[in-house]
Amino acid sequence: MRTLPPENDLLRRFERLFATRRRDVKVGVGDDAAVLAAPASLAVCTDALVEGEDFTSGTDPYLVGRKSLNVNLSDLAAMGATPLHALLTLGLPRETPVAWLDGFLDGFRAAAREHAVAIVGGDLSAAVERFASVTALGRVPAEGPLRRSGANPGDELWVSGTLGAAAAGLSLVLRGYRRDRDGKVTAPRGRRVSPERRDELARLLRHLLDPRPMVDLGRMLAEGGIASAAIDLSDGLARDLHRLCRASGTGASVERESLPIDSALATLPGLPSDPLDLSLFGGEDYGLLFTVPPRRLDAMGKVAARFAVRRIGRMDATAKLVLASGGRFSPLPDRGFDHFARDAG
Amino acid sequence: MRTLPPENDLLRRFERLFATRRRDVKVGVGDDAAVLAAPASLAVCTDALVEGEDFTSGTDPYLVGRKSLNVNLSDLAAMGATPLHALLTLGLPRETPVAWLDGFLDGFRAAAREHAVAIVGGDLSAAVERFASVTALGRVPAEGPLRRSGANPGDELWVSGTLGAAAAGLSLVLRGYRRDRDGKVTAPRGRRVSPERRDELARLLRHLLDPRPMVDLGRMLAEGGIASAAIDLSDGLARDLHRLCRASGTGASVERESLPIDSALATLPGLPSDPLDLSLFGGEDYGLLFTVPPRRLDAMGKVAARFAVRRIGRMDATAKLVLASGGRFSPLPDRGFDHFARDAG
Repeated sequence: MRTLPPENDLLRRFERLFATRRRDVKVGVGDDAAVLAAPASLAVCTDALVEGEDFTSGTDPYLVGRKSLNVNLSDLAAMGATPLHALLTLGLPRETPVAWLDGFLDGFRAAAREHAVAIVGGDLSAAVERFASVTALGRVPAEGPLRRSGANPGDELWVSGTLGAAAAGLSLVLRGYRRDRDGKVTAPRGRRVSPERRDELARLLRHLLDPRPMVDLGRMLAEGGIASAAIDLSDGLARDLHRLCRASGTGASVERESLPIDSALATLPGLPSDPLDLSLFGGEDYGLLFTVPPRRLDAMGKVAARFAVRRIGRMDATAKLVLASGGRFSPLPDRGFDHFARDAG
Repeated sequence: MRTLPPENDLLRRFERLFATRRRDVKVGVGDDAAVLAAPASLAVCTDALVEGEDFTSGTDPYLVGRKSLNVNLSDLAAMGATPLHALLTLGLPRETPVAWLDGFLDGFRAAAREHAVAIVGGDLSAAVERFASVTALGRVPAEGPLRRSGANPGDELWVSGTLGAAAAGLSLVLRGYRRDRDGKVTAPRGRRVSPERRDELARLLRHLLDPRPMVDLGRMLAEGGIASAAIDLSDGLARDLHRLCRASGTGASVERESLPIDSALATLPGLPSDPLDLSLFGGEDYGLLFTVPPRRLDAMGKVAARFAVRRIGRMDATAKLVLASGGRFSPLPDRGFDHFARDAG
């Protein structure tokens, strides 16, 4: 198994791989810095994946590459921005097989291609554990960015996609299930993937390992002036809603019966907690959570015709977050994924 | 010793620490992405420091914080760009003392203040080893960026600062010498710092641990249209000159007698190789290596009156890099710092 060549060779390879003819890239990979013809209003964000924290060592590197870019594009989507450029910093152990790096770069470039993102810079360092630190740049529409802080009492609360699928996918990965770039699922030693469950397992693992950033939805919400606030769901609905409420200075009530809990959660054996808990406190769904003022609900009709979105509650003037079910209310705690929790499960 | 609080607390602390009133920062730290009023021509670069590779675990975290930003500003300087904004991604073991994080952030913010850089975003992840991955953004002057590729045969080759001091500093660190943020030097166990050497040791360690990006020099070279090409010295004069020559399609001859070898190297005991070798192949000097067309040498007079710069050779139409000394020529190999070398020293 070939391991990494000298750094100079790798850097020259990156220059070839990441060469671009984009007219907004004046200087691309291969100089001390990239030079871009930037939009007047530029969104920029950064997010890292670390082996052992954000992906297991057995994860198909192609999927790690895709996800390392896509989690950043999800942040841009939550601002309503259109992705333009990305920079990639990789930390790799010296004994990393070349095939791992190749797979990662293939995945990273595939995600960049899908969203017309030009890769304009990067860095490479030896490290004990693998990590990928990505920065993404995008164009904010003339109507302005979607902020976390824009919600008002009376705005309706919406979410895209289903909830809890990525958390269910994580429970499968922790039990030893794997999914490769082609969707093939392998069971842990001593188990087999039953034919009737195969597609469902593949889908749940896909949600965790290969999330899709809601770039078109975010843009439509921003350009149409439809959403008053937005955040992407990275650490769970409850925690991210707390963040949105804190920034906006509002409370919120979430209707238990309206939550788009992923349908697979009701029947999948071996889940670490019940479907409602996974949906509220499980991370990495990467849908958008956003608020819509009542006067814009007509425009939401067009959005709902194009995207899987659901109204799940309403913002209010309290300082509380509650879960409403059958006329009863329970507090919705600020709980969810925490990188520094001691008992991470 | 207190270790890190929950991630949410850390993120909120970052929001307070990195709050900015800069008018070009429309949305700062605390949303999904920052939103900037960007210059039309934007330089962007990224560079990471990894514990055990780029700094030892005993290094004063204040200095790690400063350096993690300053190595990026050095890349901007090599483009002639003025630093504007930075994003910081930190990987930290769960058992990291709060004091380490505080020291790091103090250093990072001090370097940002010195160069009027607004910190606009970041990410935080648990990790086995500490790393800091930084992205910096800057304004490219109307005259255009300094490129690696702009040198022509006949251009003179210049360098700023002295050579080899950081490599000498590294040899001291590898022997157990330490220097804190206040310049205090401590010797390894069983040795003492002699009073007559103290200032010199502090200076050599400073070159390695707290390099200063040549931002003003880079800007003057670009805005004055003085340099035809530039690169910052991160991996040693020889390797970085090879990069500049490869990008420009030129050769170069370097005059042995003109090299600004750091004066301390001649007398410092215990260096791993001779002063010339350290100057040519030692990394992290972070001066600028640049070329000046003959017609701009008058303007270089003004630069030389303000900065410590030295003419060290000339670009030519060969495909070779040579070291000239007393009428004799020897090849200058493409050798220097390599993250992935197996026998890194």
